[in-house]
Amino acid sequence: MSDIKNLAIDMNSDIGEGFGAWSMGDDSAILDSVSSANIACGYHAGDPSIMRKTVEMCADRGVGIGAHVSYPDLAGFGRREMALSPQEVYDCCLYQIGALGAFCMASGAPLRHVKPHGALYNRAAKDRGIADAITRAAKDSGGFILLGMANSEMEASAKAAGLPFASEAFADRAYMSDGTLMPRSMEGSVIHDAAVAARRAVRMACRGTVVASDGSEISFRPDSICLHGDTPEAVGMALAVRGALAEAGVEIRAMGGL
Amino acid sequence: MSDIKNLAIDMNSDIGEGFGAWSMGDDSAILDSVSSANIACGYHAGDPSIMRKTVEMCADRGVGIGAHVSYPDLAGFGRREMALSPQEVYDCCLYQIGALGAFCMASGAPLRHVKPHGALYNRAAKDRGIADAITRAAKDSGGFILLGMANSEMEASAKAAGLPFASEAFADRAYMSDGTLMPRSMEGSVIHDAAVAARRAVRMACRGTVVASDGSEISFRPDSICLHGDTPEAVGMALAVRGALAEAGVEIRAMGGL
Amino acid sequence: MSDIKNLAIDMNSDIGEGFGAWSMGDDSAILDSVSSANIACGYHAGDPSIMRKTVEMCADRGVGIGAHVSYPDLAGFGRREMALSPQEVYDCCLYQIGALGAFCMASGAPLRHVKPHGALYNRAAKDRGIADAITRAAKDSGGFILLGMANSEMEASAKAAGLPFASEAFADRAYMSDGTLMPRSMEGSVIHDAAVAARRAVRMACRGTVVASDGSEISFRPDSICLHGDTPEAVGMALAVRGALAEAGVEIRAMGGL
Amino acid sequence: MSDIKNLAIDMNSDIGEGFGAWSMGDDSAILDSVSSANIACGYHAGDPSIMRKTVEMCADRGVGIGAHVSYPDLAGFGRREMALSPQEVYDCCLYQIGALGAFCMASGAPLRHVKPHGALYNRAAKDRGIADAITRAAKDSGGFILLGMANSEMEASAKAAGLPFASEAFADRAYMSDGTLMPRSMEGSVIHDAAVAARRAVRMACRGTVVASDGSEISFRPDSICLHGDTPEAVGMALAVRGALAEAGVEIRAMGGL
Repeated sequence: MSDIKNLAIDMNSDIGEGFGAWSMGDDSAILDSVSSANIACGYHAGDPSIMRKTVEMCADRGVGIGAHVSYPDLAGFGRREMALSPQEVYDCCLYQIGALGAFCMASGAPLRHVKPHGALYNRAAKDRGIADAITRAAKDSGGFILLGMANSEMEASAKAAGLPFASEAFADRAYMSDGTLMPRSMEGSVIHDAAVAARRAVRMACRGTVVASDGSEISFRPDSICLHGDTPEAVGMALAVRGALAEAGVEIRAMGGL
Repeated sequence: MSDIKNLAIDMNSDIGEGFGAWSMGDDSAILDSVSSANIACGYHAGDPSIMRKTVEMCADRGVGIGAHVSYPDLAGFGRREMALSPQEVYDCCLYQIGALGAFCMASGAPLRHVKPHGALYNRAAKDRGIADAITRAAKDSGGFILLGMANSEMEASAKAAGLPFASEAFADRAYMSDGTLMPRSMEGSVIHDAAVAARRAVRMACRGTVVASDGSEISFRPDSICLHGDTPEAVGMALAVRGALAEAGVEIRAMGGL
Repeated sequence: MSDIKNLAIDMNSDIGEGFGAWSMGDDSAILDSVSSANIACGYHAGDPSIMRKTVEMCADRGVGIGAHVSYPDLAGFGRREMALSPQEVYDCCLYQIGALGAFCMASGAPLRHVKPHGALYNRAAKDRGIADAITRAAKDSGGFILLGMANSEMEASAKAAGLPFASEAFADRAYMSDGTLMPRSMEGSVIHDAAVAARRAVRMACRGTVVASDGSEISFRPDSICLHGDTPEAVGMALAVRGALAEAGVEIRAMGGL
Repeated sequence: MSDIKNLAIDMNSDIGEGFGAWSMGDDSAILDSVSSANIACGYHAGDPSIMRKTVEMCADRGVGIGAHVSYPDLAGFGRREMALSPQEVYDCCLYQIGALGAFCMASGAPLRHVKPHGALYNRAAKDRGIADAITRAAKDSGGFILLGMANSEMEASAKAAGLPFASEAFADRAYMSDGTLMPRSMEGSVIHDAAVAARRAVRMACRGTVVASDGSEISFRPDSICLHGDTPEAVGMALAVRGALAEAGVEIRAMGGL
C-alpha cells in the first residue's frame, strides 16, 4: 500500500498537428488528460502560429512540453522513410528543437523532452547512428529528456550519452512476447476498446507487466503511456486511461517530475 | 587623437544564403572582413546543415552572430512583400530566432542580434506594427540586439520596448539629404567603386556624417556598416572598407562589444 | 414559358482543398450538387494524390473541372496578398494549370476553366496587369474559360483577349447597389439562411436581378453561382440552392455547356 | 560507309536546375552541345519562371524537351531516397509532367520525353513497381518517350507497356563487365579527361561497344549519351564529346527523331 501511493506515470500525446488552415484532432480535450505533449515543429505538421498557441495551451495547463521532431515531409506527414544522413538528422532536429524552444521561452514554460515522429521514430528505434544523431541534438540544445520506445536503439543511445531517457508504451497496441509492438498489419494489433486499453495501462503502471499476444505476461514498466490524439475515439480513450489510472491510485505526472 | 583611438564600428553582412545544393556568395571570404554576420534561418535561404556550418564558421572567427529573419518565401528569396499580420510576423520571427539559437548553443557562440531581411526589412522600416512584432520576438526569445535602418520605425520600436538597437548604413548606397536611402531606381543609387565606398564608411565612422546626393553633408553615425555578400565585387568591397577603416584608426568590433 | 425551359445556370464550388494528411470539407457531398468544380493545384492546397482523386470524382459525376490557381502559399492557404509580378503570376498559373491538366488527361475528362483563388482572385478583380497574366496563362495553355467576378478587371481582361469568360455570383453574400460584394467586415454581408440564399439564386437565374443591401433591385445575371464548400452549412446550402433552382425550372449546367 | 552516314545518337543533359535566386550550371552553353534536355519540374529544382525560360531556350535551339521528374525534395535536390508508394510516384510524376507540358504548349515546342532524376532514377532502375508508376505516368499524360538506364527495370517496364524507351549511357563513367555502372565509391568510376570520354562516346555510337573496367569490350549501344551539366568541366566535356562524334560522322539527333 505504501508502494501504491508512490506510483506515478506520465501520459503523452502528439498535438499541434494542424498546418495553416488545416486542423487535426481535438488538442484542447486531449490536453485535459495527458501530462506531457509532443508538439509538432513545422516539419511534419505545425506552423509557427499553431506552435505558439499549442505551447500556450500546455503552459496554461501545466502539461510538460516536448519537441516532436520529424523528417522534413509535410506532404507525407513525416510518415515516409527518407534517406537522411545522421548529420542531416542532427541538423534537422536541432533546428526544430530550437524553434519550439523559442515559443517555450516566450511563454515561460520550459521545453522538457524530445520525441522523434513517424518514420524517424521507427528508424531511430532500430538504427543506432540515427538514434545517436537525435540524442546528440537533444543534448547539444540543452539536455532534454529523450522520449522513445523501450528497449530500442534510442534507449541505448541516450544511456550511452548520459541523457535522461523516458520509455513509452501504447495502451491501445498489442505487444509480442519479446516486448516489441505487434505490427499494424496483423489482426488484433490495435485495441479499440477503451476499457481494455485502460486496464492494460493500469497493469503497466501498477504491476509493471503487459499481457503479450500469446497470452504470456511479460515485464514491462514504461515511464509514459502514449495516447493517440488524431483518431475519432482519441478523447474517450485518453479519459478512460486517465480515469482508470487515477482509480488505481496512480499519479499522472510529467516526465522528469514537472 | 585620444578620440580616434576609441573609434569603433561594426561591419555586418548577410551570409548563409545557400539552400540545399545551391550556394550563394563567398561566405568564408566575407567573414574575414566583417565583425557581425546575419545568418539566414530557412525562410528566405539557409537550411539546417548550412546554418550549422555557417554558425561554426562565425564561432571559429569570433564573428558576432545574428538571426536574419524573413517572410516564408524561399522561391522569392524573401524579397516579395507578403501580407502577414503582425502576429504572424512575430510567430515566424520567434521560430527562426529559436532555430538559429539552437545552432549557436551547440557551437558555444551566443546569438547576439536579429535583423529582418528583404521585404520584411523594408516593411518594418515603415510599419510600426510590423516593427513591434519583430522587436517583441527579439525580446521574448532572449533580448537580442535589433539591427536595422537608422531613423526607422524599427529604431523607434526597439527604443520604446527598451531593446538595444543598432543602426546600420550602407557604404555602397547613396543617401538623400533627409538621411533615407536613394531608391535603387534612381541613377547613382549604388556605388560600385570600392575606394569611394570605403571613404564614405570612414567618414561615417570618424566624422559621423555622409555626403548626401545633393552634395550636402548630413549627420549620420551608424553603429554598423552593412556590406553586401552576394555580388561579384562583394569581397573586394569588404576588404577595401575594412582596410580604410583600419587605416583611419577605427576598430572593427561586433555590436554590443563582442 | 418558352423562356423558362431554356433557363440554365452553372453552380461551382472550390474542392480538393486538403493537403497530405489533412482534409477540408465534404467534397463528395458538394459534388452531388454542383456542375463545376474548382480544384486546388498544390499552391494553396491540394497535392498530386488529392488532385487525382478529386479529378476522378468529378469525371465520374460529369462535373466540369477547373484549375483553382493560387499564389504559392500553403501556410497561408493562398489568402495572403503576395507581391508577385505579372510575369510570376503567369508562370505560376501556367504551372498549376498544366499540372491539373495532366490528371484530367489521365482521367479522360477535359479541363474546362480556370479560376484564381483567394488573394489572387481579389487582386485580379482590381488589377488589370494581374488579370491579364491569368488570362494569358489560360489562353496559352489551351484556351480555357476564365471564371471570375462579374464586372471586374478579370472580365475586361478576358474579353479583350477573346477568351470566354464566366461571371460568378455568391448566393450567400450580400451585394451593394453598385453590384459589388458587401465587405465581410459589414454586418449582414454573409447570408446563413439557406432558404434566403436559395431564393436569391433563383432570382439571379430567372430574373437576372439581385436585391442590394439598400433594398434596390439591380440587374445581375451571373453565369455561375459559387457555393462555399468548407463551412459546416455548406452541403445544406448547396442542396437548398440546387433544389430551389430545379423547382424554378432552371437547369444546372456546367459552363460552356458540358 | 553506307552505315556511317546513318549513324546517329542523342546527347542529353539535365538543365533548368536553379531555384528562385539560385542558379546551377551554364545551361546556355550546355544547350549548344546537346540535342535533348531534361528540365527540372519544381520537385528537386526549377521553379515556374525558370521552367519557362528553360523551355524557351530549348525551343529556340530546337533541342528536344523532357520532364526531369523527381521525388518532392528541394532541400535534398532529389538525391535522397524517399519511401513513396508507386501510386504516390505516379501522382507526383503526372503533376510534374503536366506542369512542364504547359510551358511547352505555351512555347510551341512539344514535350518529348520523361526521365526520372536522382534517387528516383536509381530506384526505378531496380524496382519494377516504381518503374511501372513512371511508365504509366508518361503514358497517361500523352505517351512520352521514357529515357533511362539500359537493361534496367525502366527499360523492361516501358517495353511491357508499349511505351518508347531510350537508353542512356554516361561518357564520363566507367562500366563493369556486366554493363552496369561502376559505383562512384570505386576508384576510376568517373572519367575526368574529356578526350577519353569523347572516345568512349564515339565507340558507343559507332561500334556499339564500351571497354569495361576489366578491359573487356562489351556490347553497348545507347540511344543517348548523358552529359552532366553542373560540374566545372561540364561545358568542355560536352563540346569534346560533340566534336568527336561529329568528326566520326555521327549525327547528333534528339530522341524520336526531332
